[in-house]
Amino acid sequence: MPDAETIRYRAADKGVPAAVDLLDQTRLPGEVSRLVCTELSELHDAIVRLVVRGAPAIGIAAAYGVTLARADASATPQQVRQSYRDAIDYLATSRPTAVNLFWALDRMRGLVDSVRDEAISELPGQLAAEAARIHEEDRVMCREMGRHGAELLRGCETVLTHCNAGSLATSAYGTALAPIYYLHEHGHSLQVFADETRPLLQGARLTAWELSQAGVPVTVCTDSMAGGLMRRGMVDAVIVGADRIAACGDVANKIGTYPLAVLARYHSIPFFVVAPTNTFDRELESGELIPIEQRDEAEVRHASGHVSGPMTVPQQAAVINPAFDVTPAELVTAIVTEQGVIEKPSAAKIQQHFAGNA
Amino acid sequence: MPDAETIRYRAADKGVPAAVDLLDQTRLPGEVSRLVCTELSELHDAIVRLVVRGAPAIGIAAAYGVTLARADASATPQQVRQSYRDAIDYLATSRPTAVNLFWALDRMRGLVDSVRDEAISELPGQLAAEAARIHEEDRVMCREMGRHGAELLRGCETVLTHCNAGSLATSAYGTALAPIYYLHEHGHSLQVFADETRPLLQGARLTAWELSQAGVPVTVCTDSMAGGLMRRGMVDAVIVGADRIAACGDVANKIGTYPLAVLARYHSIPFFVVAPTNTFDRELESGELIPIEQRDEAEVRHASGHVSGPMTVPQQAAVINPAFDVTPAELVTAIVTEQGVIEKPSAAKIQQHFAGNA
Repeated sequence: MPDAETIRYRAADKGVPAAVDLLDQTRLPGEVSRLVCTELSELHDAIVRLVVRGAPAIGIAAAYGVTLARADASATPQQVRQSYRDAIDYLATSRPTAVNLFWALDRMRGLVDSVRDEAISELPGQLAAEAARIHEEDRVMCREMGRHGAELLRGCETVLTHCNAGSLATSAYGTALAPIYYLHEHGHSLQVFADETRPLLQGARLTAWELSQAGVPVTVCTDSMAGGLMRRGMVDAVIVGADRIAACGDVANKIGTYPLAVLARYHSIPFFVVAPTNTFDRELESGELIPIEQRDEAEVRHASGHVSGPMTVPQQAAVINPAFDVTPAELVTAIVTEQGVIEKPSAAKIQQHFAGNA
Repeated sequence: MPDAETIRYRAADKGVPAAVDLLDQTRLPGEVSRLVCTELSELHDAIVRLVVRGAPAIGIAAAYGVTLARADASATPQQVRQSYRDAIDYLATSRPTAVNLFWALDRMRGLVDSVRDEAISELPGQLAAEAARIHEEDRVMCREMGRHGAELLRGCETVLTHCNAGSLATSAYGTALAPIYYLHEHGHSLQVFADETRPLLQGARLTAWELSQAGVPVTVCTDSMAGGLMRRGMVDAVIVGADRIAACGDVANKIGTYPLAVLARYHSIPFFVVAPTNTFDRELESGELIPIEQRDEAEVRHASGHVSGPMTVPQQAAVINPAFDVTPAELVTAIVTEQGVIEKPSAAKIQQHFAGNA
């Protein structure tokens, strides 16, 4: 399992401000470099620009990010609380779809709301500790998703994945890639097909990079090749992560996930979603209610995903760029969480899954 | 309808050699420039590099290309014939999938084989005239496909297309785009979604360019967005061209066509194929027998489709790059040819279509 240290944290110390230190994923695979954020606005921008991305990683980064808020030394406890609340509200505007962001920020808000005036000086340390707990819990959850998911993949030789739901999208191991790493560690290497995942090529740039680093055999295909591979019997299972899962099991994930689910069903191939329980938005009845981020046209107009590249769409033509799509629960064979497997997900089964492990 | 003059021909005259003058499609949309080929090897390379592409256009270019063969002034009739036969064999190696190439070259070969020794001096002129006939026939066929296809699209407001099967892929009008141009000329403008079509972006670069030029509203989406658009009811029909159609109606076309056909079926959206009768390979029983061109990995490793762009797949990861896929006849709602419409295509219906118009 690769450890690229997607997110590192340095606590404030002797006048040196706290810092959230991110592997800059916009520069992979060409360049392995880091971006150190000491200002809230830097971290907000890093999330918007996808320097850090992947639902769990966004949550972790934002949790650490809250500690970058600073109040004057002379501030009252109420003012200190307010500066953290403002930071939380601000970070929550960075990306709309992944629910882990709001889940992590809600945990941080809980601490801010509950701290007594007398203990206000301990709040920064408590917030840093809470963010570190979120980070560490994610590591454990990914490991557990790997273990549960590996059971589902027994008998498979090849899997196809979309976007990046690996180590780079989480603390470590990943979600969709966790079972693949788990099996690899136990001596069984699956052959992975990684959809390149236009427009921002997270499959080509990130999934192919981290699997290669870990010694897992990986082959990149364009998004449009997946159907043909399935038809030729070259895909035993599709496995993806999620950005938000509704109460009924509808799954929002990177644009291009839904057509894979339709294709998997047509070819009688299982379609697995791997995500921690904090990816569920149990207040949303249906996936149709999940807000879908519309991103900058430039990502589609420049095929390299970078505005520095040549423009590949003529100016006069329109462009659309929804970042996610929604896969209805009926196309999902199973959802894997850190608590186990939900086969043929439905509102009732998801309720049971949460109740059974409450 | 745009007239970009995809292919122009200049006959040999007063010692100036014949030339096949091509719009360089590798440079669109950024640059409108032409490549003039006076040597066989230049034209062969232009076809390989997709300076000219699209099944009908390849056939036309290759037909003209045969006239670039030169025999010594002292050559015997037999040697003259052989030099043209060698040119035909050589051009046939440029690309393996589109059958129009072989069909056009077979027509040229027919002339070479039938010319009498006494008339050998007329052969160059006859070959140039035959190529011009192939060119002109294509124009008429495209126009007829437009007329027949327009009937099928009545009632549609939006269509989705893949790759480029337009004016740039033919003499004019195109195949899949012909009905769209036909309706546009008759006052009904469809909204077209153009899949960008990785790896070489023919949809983003070429289809969006030529439709914009003609004033047809066009929106580019990445290949992976098509499924989501269908789910949201934003696509009334899918319409594509073909590189080869087997006797049973199985269709080889640009990679990414097959998943669109599956998605269209899942969403109960009609899936139309538009191709002239010379795209049929009636000797092939099944689409599975169609040879599929595997192209250079570099096209996938560089997201811009140009090796000049940054490498977006890490070196250690493998890559696949099949240029085409095969859509089985059972997923095709209708095939439109210049002779009319074949609904729910099958071996029997296709046989009838050819017999009825023989």
